[in-house]
Amino acid sequence: MSAYQQLSSLFQRLFHYEHLGAMAGWDQLTMMPTGGSDARAEAMAELEVLMHRTLTAPEVGEWLASADAESLDDAQRANLREMHRAWHDAVVLPERLVEARSLAGARCEQAWRRQRPDNDWAGFADNLREVVRLSREEATIRAEATGTSRYEALLNKFEPDMNVTELDRLFNDLRDGLPGLLAQVVERQRSSPAHTPEGPFDIEAQRRLGQETMRRLGFDFEHGRLDVSLHPFCGGVPEDVRLTTRYREDECLSSLMGIIHETGHARYEQNLPAPWRGQPLGRARSMSIHESQSLTFEMQLGRSEAFVRQLAPQLVAHFGNRPGFEVDNLVRLAQRVEPGLIRVDADEVSYPAHILLRYEIERALIEGEIEVDDIPALWDEKMQHYLGLETRGNYRDGPMQDIHWTDGSFGYFPTYSLGAMLAAQLMAAVRRDHPELDERLAAGEPGILFDWLKAQIWQQGSRFETPELIRRATGEPLDAGYYRRHLESRYLGEPAGRSGGVAKRAHQPIGSGNEDD
Amino acid sequence: MSAYQQLSSLFQRLFHYEHLGAMAGWDQLTMMPTGGSDARAEAMAELEVLMHRTLTAPEVGEWLASADAESLDDAQRANLREMHRAWHDAVVLPERLVEARSLAGARCEQAWRRQRPDNDWAGFADNLREVVRLSREEATIRAEATGTSRYEALLNKFEPDMNVTELDRLFNDLRDGLPGLLAQVVERQRSSPAHTPEGPFDIEAQRRLGQETMRRLGFDFEHGRLDVSLHPFCGGVPEDVRLTTRYREDECLSSLMGIIHETGHARYEQNLPAPWRGQPLGRARSMSIHESQSLTFEMQLGRSEAFVRQLAPQLVAHFGNRPGFEVDNLVRLAQRVEPGLIRVDADEVSYPAHILLRYEIERALIEGEIEVDDIPALWDEKMQHYLGLETRGNYRDGPMQDIHWTDGSFGYFPTYSLGAMLAAQLMAAVRRDHPELDERLAAGEPGILFDWLKAQIWQQGSRFETPELIRRATGEPLDAGYYRRHLESRYLGEPAGRSGGVAKRAHQPIGSGNEDD
Repeated sequence: MSAYQQLSSLFQRLFHYEHLGAMAGWDQLTMMPTGGSDARAEAMAELEVLMHRTLTAPEVGEWLASADAESLDDAQRANLREMHRAWHDAVVLPERLVEARSLAGARCEQAWRRQRPDNDWAGFADNLREVVRLSREEATIRAEATGTSRYEALLNKFEPDMNVTELDRLFNDLRDGLPGLLAQVVERQRSSPAHTPEGPFDIEAQRRLGQETMRRLGFDFEHGRLDVSLHPFCGGVPEDVRLTTRYREDECLSSLMGIIHETGHARYEQNLPAPWRGQPLGRARSMSIHESQSLTFEMQLGRSEAFVRQLAPQLVAHFGNRPGFEVDNLVRLAQRVEPGLIRVDADEVSYPAHILLRYEIERALIEGEIEVDDIPALWDEKMQHYLGLETRGNYRDGPMQDIHWTDGSFGYFPTYSLGAMLAAQLMAAVRRDHPELDERLAAGEPGILFDWLKAQIWQQGSRFETPELIRRATGEPLDAGYYRRHLESRYLGEPAGRSGGVAKRAHQPIGSGNEDD
Repeated sequence: MSAYQQLSSLFQRLFHYEHLGAMAGWDQLTMMPTGGSDARAEAMAELEVLMHRTLTAPEVGEWLASADAESLDDAQRANLREMHRAWHDAVVLPERLVEARSLAGARCEQAWRRQRPDNDWAGFADNLREVVRLSREEATIRAEATGTSRYEALLNKFEPDMNVTELDRLFNDLRDGLPGLLAQVVERQRSSPAHTPEGPFDIEAQRRLGQETMRRLGFDFEHGRLDVSLHPFCGGVPEDVRLTTRYREDECLSSLMGIIHETGHARYEQNLPAPWRGQPLGRARSMSIHESQSLTFEMQLGRSEAFVRQLAPQLVAHFGNRPGFEVDNLVRLAQRVEPGLIRVDADEVSYPAHILLRYEIERALIEGEIEVDDIPALWDEKMQHYLGLETRGNYRDGPMQDIHWTDGSFGYFPTYSLGAMLAAQLMAAVRRDHPELDERLAAGEPGILFDWLKAQIWQQGSRFETPELIRRATGEPLDAGYYRRHLESRYLGEPAGRSGGVAKRAHQPIGSGNEDD
């Protein structure tokens, strides 16, 4: 076997291990009884150690060096590039840290499930300090190996080709424009408030509507499931994608929009290039690309007037006719902007504020500028600054609301807003390539959008690095302007109820150049 | 670290790997969409190879040799004995065979799920031939290593301390007495037929009744779940035991009795000695001991008059009063004897015939005396002989009805009847130790039984070899006479509806010696 073939077979093995981890992880969040958590945490930490040990075995470095000199085609070369990256990511960390991080994360997360409802910040902070200590240790090791800042080193675990300078440039665009935009939109919507349809909404009917919607959006139930978890997510493996939602009896739109969001993640996974299954090239590109798919589904498509218009009769079919199910009202509901405490419930105009706040805090935390005990005061200050909301003493709906920090996923949050920016940019690109897009969507035929995403993003896997993937798909680098213009168009431009997309940009010729403001 | 400590830590690691396999296996049978089967099979085969490789690494043999000379207490010595056994079981098999067996088994089982409803024997036989070929190869290797017959070598995977001579001695007792007993019981029951209550029985109500019953039987829902699968089983790990049932709308007792059966398995697992978790000593002793627990729950307790009497008002509470819910009729139903084609639906009088038939066929198959193509004719002949039933051409309800052969679990079937024998013997022992047992059971207080099982069986784990465990618990070796006398007592002795146990033996003094006929 050539060194490249040795590596291919190694990564195939790692893929099988990951499969077991993905299923154990899904089960942990959907099925596992509480008493199973310690044993599960130990088993999953063991798996992480195994995968780390497998990937960093002494011969792997030699194979990588030899494979560089072997004759490979372009795809194999790209696959080898990703192998190098995965190996570098792993080999810098000592096994001891991999295991300690996994166990501390599991401990913090499990305790958080009880501490959050109890608003027990002191208890949570005790566990979080250990998670932060280990994350800083990891960040220091990675930063030394790559010559980046400590925070950037963690960011790169989720978003390999992003640096903090570029991130700040993109985020400044949001930071400057959003507070004004938000105030304008809130003021504008005051005159035409949305009416919330009254429950109860039968959970079983919500589940059926969710599954129906997933089918319409192309989800393949032969290779996936829909279940319930406290915190919705999309997990599993490409052959068996597991997505979750949570239902509320008093409300029916939020779980549905959550399902549409996760279906975007799911279709990406289900349509990764099958011949490359098990190889690094067959994997999703990065977290921001992933999030761009879920947000294309939820925000660009799901909350557009065209989609909501088709949803209205289905709501009636599943729940009976109720006041508030009129199309105009449903569109106002789907596009309602209202600053709130909870990130996952946030509308797309105030959402970036939640990310900026978390990004600023977690970056300072990892760089050692603040400590865990400083978080609540900073949180209060930034919520006040960005959204004008008071959170003092409400840890539950403040810094304890997210699962990400509990297991040390620092550097993850920015990918949400990068994904939102890219979703808007992708949608604009589809409109350029297919000027008939909005007509098709209005007719309830989203296939043209899915086909484009499949060809440009899903089937590309990790063949190209992120900037190159974006450039090939849209003709230009990631540009926050698309997102801002999408928000302006949907929330300030056309009257709500007429167009949900960036219609004013819909008929520009293909490849009309730089879309910068 | 001493060699013994090295081994302890190795087995702890293997336990974590097993945890992942147990959860992936449970998921495969309860949750997995059909399109996920190939990827799952590959991931699970990879795990089996990993576990085999881990256990058979060159240093393990050296550790075992060194540990023999180390200073250990009795429990550690017993743990080391079980480590030796696990290692011997693994080290004789080449890794290639471990992987091939796993993949061929998964392929055959997955295809069988479609082939069985289609009655497609030819298609099934194609896959089964490969499974048999690999099982014979395994049997030959094991037989050469241990000096046993090929079939005995496979039997010993599930029942380590049993040999074919002893098995035949025990089974001959059944073979000789059962046809006559069966005819007598069927004739006797003809005069007082049971009336089957009419459905439909709401599935959700059945589930609630099942969970309630599990709670009454001591199942710990903090460390386990109840779900649905095509073929009921008990899986998971001691900290998180997963049991399943299947519901029928037209019938409510069979799923409940299935739940009671699996709860017996589950309580054994949940009550294994916690300080030995992850070590061989902390494991369930063998499959016959396991089955003795499920059958103590289902047959000795669950189908006794005392238990059914308490069940009656619960049936009424969950399904409303219906004709057939009278206590006397319910007891007749729970104890109805009716030869049928399907093993898992069989009553406890005709059940052994299903086992004898399978034992005779699989033994001849593994010893090379017959081929896969000979199975249907032999099946017909033996069903005719043992139960007087015609099965010709009905493969679905004939040799294709069980999951066991699909993945090569030859040698497993005999443990069902060994377990049935032991369950009767254990119940007699509890009665000797606690003459008040039947009064307590009649009062709906089965705690005395569970406490005895916990102390004598569950908490013992694998500390003693099977014959020693049985001798310590019951004062004598495994004796088929208890089972025969239990059947005679329940089905011929007292009128059905008065006593469900071996009441005539209840007041013998403790340790009254050999119970042989």
